[in-house]
Amino acid sequence: MDFPSSVGEVTPRTLRLDRPLPLHSGASLAPVDLVYETYGTLHPARDNAVLVCHALNASHHAAGHHADTPRSEGWWDNLIGPGKPLDTRHFFVICMNNPGSCFGSTGPTHPNPATGQPWGADFPVVQVEDWVDAQARLLDALGIDTLAAVIGGSLGGMQALAWTVQYPERVRHAAVIASAPALSAQNIAFNEVARRAIVTDPDFHEGHYLRHGTVPKRGLRVARMIGHITYLSDDAMASKFGRELRNGHLAYTTQGIEFQVESYLRHQGDKFSEYFDANTYLLITRALDYFDPARAHGGSLRRALAAARAKFLVVSFTTDWRFTPQRSREIVKALLDNRSEVSYAEIDAPHGHDAFLMEDPRYHGVLRRWFGRIAQTLSGAKELQA
Amino acid sequence: MDFPSSVGEVTPRTLRLDRPLPLHSGASLAPVDLVYETYGTLHPARDNAVLVCHALNASHHAAGHHADTPRSEGWWDNLIGPGKPLDTRHFFVICMNNPGSCFGSTGPTHPNPATGQPWGADFPVVQVEDWVDAQARLLDALGIDTLAAVIGGSLGGMQALAWTVQYPERVRHAAVIASAPALSAQNIAFNEVARRAIVTDPDFHEGHYLRHGTVPKRGLRVARMIGHITYLSDDAMASKFGRELRNGHLAYTTQGIEFQVESYLRHQGDKFSEYFDANTYLLITRALDYFDPARAHGGSLRRALAAARAKFLVVSFTTDWRFTPQRSREIVKALLDNRSEVSYAEIDAPHGHDAFLMEDPRYHGVLRRWFGRIAQTLSGAKELQA
Repeated sequence: MDFPSSVGEVTPRTLRLDRPLPLHSGASLAPVDLVYETYGTLHPARDNAVLVCHALNASHHAAGHHADTPRSEGWWDNLIGPGKPLDTRHFFVICMNNPGSCFGSTGPTHPNPATGQPWGADFPVVQVEDWVDAQARLLDALGIDTLAAVIGGSLGGMQALAWTVQYPERVRHAAVIASAPALSAQNIAFNEVARRAIVTDPDFHEGHYLRHGTVPKRGLRVARMIGHITYLSDDAMASKFGRELRNGHLAYTTQGIEFQVESYLRHQGDKFSEYFDANTYLLITRALDYFDPARAHGGSLRRALAAARAKFLVVSFTTDWRFTPQRSREIVKALLDNRSEVSYAEIDAPHGHDAFLMEDPRYHGVLRRWFGRIAQTLSGAKELQA
Repeated sequence: MDFPSSVGEVTPRTLRLDRPLPLHSGASLAPVDLVYETYGTLHPARDNAVLVCHALNASHHAAGHHADTPRSEGWWDNLIGPGKPLDTRHFFVICMNNPGSCFGSTGPTHPNPATGQPWGADFPVVQVEDWVDAQARLLDALGIDTLAAVIGGSLGGMQALAWTVQYPERVRHAAVIASAPALSAQNIAFNEVARRAIVTDPDFHEGHYLRHGTVPKRGLRVARMIGHITYLSDDAMASKFGRELRNGHLAYTTQGIEFQVESYLRHQGDKFSEYFDANTYLLITRALDYFDPARAHGGSLRRALAAARAKFLVVSFTTDWRFTPQRSREIVKALLDNRSEVSYAEIDAPHGHDAFLMEDPRYHGVLRRWFGRIAQTLSGAKELQA
């Protein structure tokens, strides 16, 4: 194998849906712009497409870089590219920004056609299942009937799981990574605190801050700081920061910075508040809260996943306390009870929930072998092996 | 044994220290009022005093009730009383509100003698060791040279631990419950997010909100919600709330309440913001952050605890993810390495960190037996046994 390299410079494209997108809440969204990127080449047999689903604060920009933008590597660039585990020499990779997000696809910062003003808090509630429907419409437009695979981590894993039951005939393989079949009460609680920080920021103006020329940055900062704590493991924080003081000695300050971990969190919060939309944060954390495929099946995840025809890969990380291995095992158990084909890898990695974005050799080894086996099944497999 | 009962109606008292209280930061505090309560009777030999140390949001009011105040039971009323594990028929129990707090002892809502205005953010930083010094001054005033025992949970456990090295000759037994030898980076991180929520509330006015006639309630609410999540175990939240919807069906709201756990957290935040002082929250979370007896001993907890002469009881709870059993075992190991006498109980309780406040039969059984053995050593033990 050649040394893995980048997919290089990439350019996002936009699809405007010609029909409204019906939402599972009963509402409907129109117009809908879907911003997406693709990497690699679609085979003439159109059988080598892999859909990558993004999580809370990511976008369609999963790999490569944007022209004239330094440090613009995609959020899963370590995974996707020529010679990488999701090898763009074999696969045509698609990543789409979900509606409700704030990176180009129709979302709360876009004009509400009814008023001409930004949607703001009036943007309809979108759910994981709505995103899957929107992604399916994109595939329709690209002329792709069946996915070789769908893959996602965290909230992206929920989308991958939903794909297998909403469009069972359109997805041959599904990788559900660092995910859960539904949030726990504690997960919801963390989301709710973050939302309260945003909603009670006086600059939030009930979600119509753009009309007021403000941004609820204070709330976004706190929300992001809370999130970051849940993405990292206790051990990862201990080894990264420990109790290290910022200035080597105590300053005796309650409002200033004493410990390095405080400096790190504040920096993450500041950065986030500069680029992320507050209403999007509310919408996406609600999509997380709402996801619960078992609910419509009397609480039975097994029955909820009965329609799935895909072959599954489920991956969890030992130090992920946000979506613990136990939650992944619930998915595996339901799939096994259904006699679905499923592989499960529990990766002993120190990084907590964030591990799914990192380049752990055991984790990437699992994905490399999984995608390698899928590549063998493609129409162009013989030439690729030659 | 008679049926356990309450200590009944209690009245707080106030001691004004006649000399300034030197603080470990180098500052000094004067005047200092110390509000405290006592339960039971001091033996003529003055050997049956037990000091109870309070944690973040508690006060001197540990047991009994206040006259004409419904539902004013003390915060550890299930532990302290006639026939209870800390039996006031044998022991003279003292609980003092720590300086910097907001329940009567000198704190940031009190006037700064230099200005006549409330201290606010100018109140000096107080640390666990300062509280221990203040508690020792109270004992001096009460004519108590040696404690039969000191006991505390969480931040209170840190005070109990500090007692044994600051005043090794004055404390015969120490119970350190659901505590830690120092906060982890993750613990500090949670404190810091809570502080940022308070400090960035526009009503905070850099800590001088009382002069502005405001209270940073938004920040206090968020801070308390974060705290509550860390006090409960994931399992406790799951069994208490699960994914139960408040109204039985989804309302599709990002700003309103969908799940019962959200309703609970908001209620806790609202209540807290009505009675707790924001500067006190900053001061006390900083006292937690700063506590680290090993720091002055090259990181060696063993050396830090070498001066201790007390007999220890260390208790942890299996589902406490804030101060895990592992942290308690660090204390136990350091004590054993010093050949100190230590008993350790790891209680399999589902309630998380909050378990130390609850009436778990195994937990209370451990404390009952421990205090029972101490009672045997008291001067009045023979009459009590008769």
